[in-house]
Amino acid sequence: RAPKGRCFCADKGVNMVSPKLIEKVEITPPSPSCENQEIVVTLKNGMEQKCLNPESKFTQKYIMKALKKRLA
Amino acid sequence: RAPKGRCFCADKGVNMVSPKLIEKVEITPPSPSCENQEIVVTLKNGMEQKCLNPESKFTQKYIMKALKKRLA
Repeated sequence: RAPKGRCFCADKGVNMVSPKLIEKVEITPPSPSCENQEIVVTLKNGMEQKCLNPESKFTQKYIMKALKKRLA
Repeated sequence: RAPKGRCFCADKGVNMVSPKLIEKVEITPPSPSCENQEIVVTLKNGMEQKCLNPESKFTQKYIMKALKKRLA
């Protein structure tokens, strides 16, 4: 899907980011201003922001792990 | 676990939020400034922020669905 309107991500984004560099992960649902689901990761080094590919194994595993951590 | 340091969430947070009101969901991994995994939801109405219980069924389902949406 091509990004439309005021999407933050111009493309699918990176497949992977070093977990140690992750400050936070933002999940934005589709909205009138952007029809795409977006996942943006903010990095610790200078607060750089990168789009994270929601389909990548890394993204799926990282987020699943984050949810499970509190279940332990 | 009790919150320590500069955690945003004072407690587990709410179990549920109306999905229509969700502007974005932020996942913050444990860090030196807060030892807890935190999930904060920003609402569309006035950008109010609420802590979301990572253990609640709603949170798990909402985030899983967000990941799967791009796989369809």
